[in-house]
Amino acid sequence: MTNLAVIGPGLLGGSIALAARRAGGYRISAWARRPEAVDELRRKGVADFASCDLREATAEADQVVLCVPIGAMAGIAKELAASLRSGALVTDVGSVKADVVRELPPLLGVNVRFIGSHPMAGSEQTGIAAARADLFDGSVCIVTPTAESKREDVAEAGALWRALGCRVRELSPEVHDETVAMVSHLPHLLAAALVNLAEERQSGSLDFAGPGFRDTTRVAAGPPEMWTEILRENREAVRNSTQAMVEKLLELLKLLDRLPENGERQLHEFLSQAKSRRDSVRS
Amino acid sequence: MTNLAVIGPGLLGGSIALAARRAGGYRISAWARRPEAVDELRRKGVADFASCDLREATAEADQVVLCVPIGAMAGIAKELAASLRSGALVTDVGSVKADVVRELPPLLGVNVRFIGSHPMAGSEQTGIAAARADLFDGSVCIVTPTAESKREDVAEAGALWRALGCRVRELSPEVHDETVAMVSHLPHLLAAALVNLAEERQSGSLDFAGPGFRDTTRVAAGPPEMWTEILRENREAVRNSTQAMVEKLLELLKLLDRLPENGERQLHEFLSQAKSRRDSVRS
Repeated sequence: MTNLAVIGPGLLGGSIALAARRAGGYRISAWARRPEAVDELRRKGVADFASCDLREATAEADQVVLCVPIGAMAGIAKELAASLRSGALVTDVGSVKADVVRELPPLLGVNVRFIGSHPMAGSEQTGIAAARADLFDGSVCIVTPTAESKREDVAEAGALWRALGCRVRELSPEVHDETVAMVSHLPHLLAAALVNLAEERQSGSLDFAGPGFRDTTRVAAGPPEMWTEILRENREAVRNSTQAMVEKLLELLKLLDRLPENGERQLHEFLSQAKSRRDSVRS
Repeated sequence: MTNLAVIGPGLLGGSIALAARRAGGYRISAWARRPEAVDELRRKGVADFASCDLREATAEADQVVLCVPIGAMAGIAKELAASLRSGALVTDVGSVKADVVRELPPLLGVNVRFIGSHPMAGSEQTGIAAARADLFDGSVCIVTPTAESKREDVAEAGALWRALGCRVRELSPEVHDETVAMVSHLPHLLAAALVNLAEERQSGSLDFAGPGFRDTTRVAAGPPEMWTEILRENREAVRNSTQAMVEKLLELLKLLDRLPENGERQLHEFLSQAKSRRDSVRS
């Protein structure tokens, strides 16, 4: 039995608990800040043990997953340093990694091992009510070791995510942040921009949205607090990817201008390339 | 019984035939250019009658729906002028309307009525194999009358689309083209740009795509030929909406620069506004 502590059981934390239960071999404890959330965890039987007391929820833990907002992680880590048993492995689900991976280990202390993680799962939904045992099935979890990380710790974090259903990949925290800026944070910004632009330029146009628009903008329904934090934390990489998108769109504008003459072949090539790349993405 | 002729039964045409069959009250004939497609229509029993001969497929038609690429419509219309019986109603499923609605009526002649339509349904899939009787359920169909259109003809076209499962809206051809540039053509261009940008800037990054990226870029898997034609036909409105998106992204870049100081409140407001607008979109 591995004692697994889930800190902050919302959509991701709740799904981790449910997926660990499904996998078997875990004794799951959960910590939530609000007593009502603890009551709900108990009612639903999501964890074997639930408490508002961080020390109580983590005293026996072999592995701890931080599923709180990035801004709350440092405070939690300081408390954990005083309560975790020596040798415990801590990981997290934060969407931005460089700062977290640099700041948390000194706070957790020398007796606790830390490996950053980012499961690329979830949806525009939030909260324990949306949690599912199969949320991670087939999704990628990026673990983000540093030069100081021990291979056995990286392997242990990877094994946990695999047990929960993920395909595991490794990136350095910095490359992780650039990569998710491109495949997650910029897409979010574009979706929100598209919704706002459509409404502002042509009031009522959202009434004409078809399935394409609904897919393209689905993420814009995600929680604004969480996304403000993510975009702030990763602002440099998000800035670079947004700037790159502006340049790409300026190229496309030139191409649209040349359409009556010789732009058609290039536009077709551009769309064909996008299609073949998109077709290669695992669903 | 209404004699309904479907010209070009791919995803949309095939779904029209299946939805009309489900609705009841239609005798459905279908025309396809290729003999193999006619064989498939016959094998699947999608229509009551199928033929490669346009005259044969439309001789009895009360209503005709053109489901061929926009570039093929004029040629078909000329042939139809010679074969349709007087008083037949012709409509179409073209994604761009101003040119089609201006060019087709003179070709069809004075004895044939024409009302443009654009059902906002479909997916990145193509072909009769993807056709479904419920493709149009709950989707919007925009009919695009002009100042010359008779109300009874507009009503008849609307009634057909309602019978197939659509909610029907009316826009002038010009406003239609501006609206779909914003809610369909720009989203397509963005999706394709995002896929290409991610791969070009960070080779391999598509391997890290999560559900958000997959949703946001799904339409980029659509057929490049069709989308090249759509973007070319509607290039002016697509240009305007793309230019507007560039300006929106430049605003966001400024906002990202001000994040450490006072930009956070504004970013949160921007995301909150997008969320509440996106939440209001019918799914």
